[in-house]
Amino acid sequence: MQIEVVTIGDELLLGFTIDTNAAHLARELASRGVAIVRRTTCGDSASEIASAVRDALDRSGAVITTGGLGPTSDDLTKESIAAIFGRAMRLDDGIVDNLQARWKARGWPGELPKANYQQAMIPEGCDILVNNHGSAPGIWLEDDRGRWVAMLPGVPREMRGMLADALLPRIEQRLTGTPLVIRSRTLRTSGIAESALADLLGPLAKAPFGLSLAYLPGVAGVDLRLTARNLSAGDADALLGQGAEAIRAQVGTVIYGEGNDDLAAIVLSEMRARGLTLALAESCTGGLLGQRITAVPGSSDVLLGGVVAYANEVKVSHLAVRPETLAAHGAVSEATAGEMALGAQKRFKASAALSVTGVAGPGGGTPEKPVGMVCFGLALGDTVKTFSANLYGDRPEIRERAAQAALNALRRALAKHS
Amino acid sequence: MQIEVVTIGDELLLGFTIDTNAAHLARELASRGVAIVRRTTCGDSASEIASAVRDALDRSGAVITTGGLGPTSDDLTKESIAAIFGRAMRLDDGIVDNLQARWKARGWPGELPKANYQQAMIPEGCDILVNNHGSAPGIWLEDDRGRWVAMLPGVPREMRGMLADALLPRIEQRLTGTPLVIRSRTLRTSGIAESALADLLGPLAKAPFGLSLAYLPGVAGVDLRLTARNLSAGDADALLGQGAEAIRAQVGTVIYGEGNDDLAAIVLSEMRARGLTLALAESCTGGLLGQRITAVPGSSDVLLGGVVAYANEVKVSHLAVRPETLAAHGAVSEATAGEMALGAQKRFKASAALSVTGVAGPGGGTPEKPVGMVCFGLALGDTVKTFSANLYGDRPEIRERAAQAALNALRRALAKHS
Repeated sequence: MQIEVVTIGDELLLGFTIDTNAAHLARELASRGVAIVRRTTCGDSASEIASAVRDALDRSGAVITTGGLGPTSDDLTKESIAAIFGRAMRLDDGIVDNLQARWKARGWPGELPKANYQQAMIPEGCDILVNNHGSAPGIWLEDDRGRWVAMLPGVPREMRGMLADALLPRIEQRLTGTPLVIRSRTLRTSGIAESALADLLGPLAKAPFGLSLAYLPGVAGVDLRLTARNLSAGDADALLGQGAEAIRAQVGTVIYGEGNDDLAAIVLSEMRARGLTLALAESCTGGLLGQRITAVPGSSDVLLGGVVAYANEVKVSHLAVRPETLAAHGAVSEATAGEMALGAQKRFKASAALSVTGVAGPGGGTPEKPVGMVCFGLALGDTVKTFSANLYGDRPEIRERAAQAALNALRRALAKHS
Repeated sequence: MQIEVVTIGDELLLGFTIDTNAAHLARELASRGVAIVRRTTCGDSASEIASAVRDALDRSGAVITTGGLGPTSDDLTKESIAAIFGRAMRLDDGIVDNLQARWKARGWPGELPKANYQQAMIPEGCDILVNNHGSAPGIWLEDDRGRWVAMLPGVPREMRGMLADALLPRIEQRLTGTPLVIRSRTLRTSGIAESALADLLGPLAKAPFGLSLAYLPGVAGVDLRLTARNLSAGDADALLGQGAEAIRAQVGTVIYGEGNDDLAAIVLSEMRARGLTLALAESCTGGLLGQRITAVPGSSDVLLGGVVAYANEVKVSHLAVRPETLAAHGAVSEATAGEMALGAQKRFKASAALSVTGVAGPGGGTPEKPVGMVCFGLALGDTVKTFSANLYGDRPEIRERAAQAALNALRRALAKHS
């Protein structure tokens, strides 16, 4: 099955809104063996909508639209597409009842505004796609040759809900034989450069098991995305499993997780399992490391607290860094980082402590300590380890990379410490 | 002038990459009076590219493409479009020289790989669009009827650079008469709900001066976007200026900035101007407030440091919160927030201190202190003020809203403190 997507809205066409619906639709459909062959975006104009949808229908026979189902005068999707199918519009009493019930349930004053009745106007002979996350119902319209258009709302949360609840089951019913799918699996690495990772992968670096392999470098590290194409769902999943296993066996502990796994959450659950507690001492990251860790629900049973020690006096007064250390080595040094970690571990009475001090830029770099130089300390039990890294990017990227490097050091130390 | 955009790439069509180029192109062109009337996305297939570009050219006579200019076998944009214009491809020696010079300048080993020569293949009779940010040159191809296609790279940084350096000047030359533009201006508010803002705006709430007014609520607050359409650039800017001035006069200090202004940067520059210093005491935000502030370059002359006090013992030991206060009022209370702020101000010897303690969820809520309840303390000079708010959203949203509310309280206090 081949589908085209038409996304509708002046906001999209004018660039005020970035279209995230299209990517979500594509991934969900491709993983079920339905290819999107073209995507078109047009504005809130009846003639543009009709022209774009008619062209797509002529080419592919199956079209999903998003947007233009709301209650205002620039919501023209249903009428424009009904006209292509030669269908009149009618008021649906069931939808009116629903809208009125929603209005009352929310405790809004007065009666349902007249404008909302437009949401209850639907083309003759259509099916309604249920919306469990908002007021605008979706529409399925089909002609006697089996050509169809499914109209989804533009609000991403409503679109995603209706796709899962109402549209995907309907599309899956129509798939005949064994659909050939496109599916992906992503392994996440940290602390290794793209080229070093390719070297480490050796013969797996290119197209392992016939899967395509993409290297996706980001501030969290290099993600490895394996993709299987034009296979049955079962074969695709099996091949992705083999590929992932072979890569894990080859590169080992540089992989910290899969998919959307977050390194902070992984480190936290490892520490929780061992009953360990954590304290932080941050200079150049300025709270970012704490923010990453406390973004994980339930982090309070591991993280005791932290100090943002931006000024040198604060490093001395709150983390017991010795003034002589600062004088001899500077704030950005492994010596200072080590004392920061020790100080945090002691003052918070934590089993482990992480420290970060570096030059995040754009100013403050010197030939000896350039922008991107960051020093780390890790106190764990009775030992303190320090290391440093030259990180690249602009200020936000250097800070993100520094927080990730600190978390990764803790992850690797925990693995050895077991 | 009307233009269509064709974005090219399997990654876009499969949803692995979200298309941000299209929105950037649209905004840049609309502000110069050029409307994008349709956008099409197709995969890396020669026939799909040719079909999509030919359709767009037939409809609109002017097309901008992005993507498919790289050195690999799936980069097919130039050949596919040259075929529409009936042009052969030729190797351009100037581009080869450039690519070789780039290769050497980077210190990469060996000779320029053969694959890169594909980037030097261009259609006969085209103009080259210079790329100051990467290796792939852009292409301008025009027929004898004045119909044209401009091909830009897909990498956003390169696309944006080439658009500004090479394509926009060329398009501006072709605009005749006084182009009618679409331009926007955005005022940023904090600490006021959308509906209260509309009430406060009174008669300005709808289409002030004939401008359209959009309410854009987000975690930073409600942005007010004024848009002028179908006016000359001068008239649009003048009307936007009048609208912005009238709204500022009407709603006053709820507006903290314009465009992409960041509240943390605004507060920092205000404090810097007065020679004030700042300390932080964070519980539920866990470092996010520090991260927001230290994200601003040069923040170290204002921010001395902060404490992430997640555990109650840390609130006592590091911020001098009294155990009796915690016992009587709990960690999430204005009494505790006030003592946290005072403790931070004193221990860091700062002129001002901000504290945040709340229930970020998803767990930890009670009927008296539900998820989203957040208490704040602000110590400034000799006074301490506390307040609390019921914030909504999921855990990340509640934390973002809390950090913004704390910064906004400081901004408003500074305005009164002058």
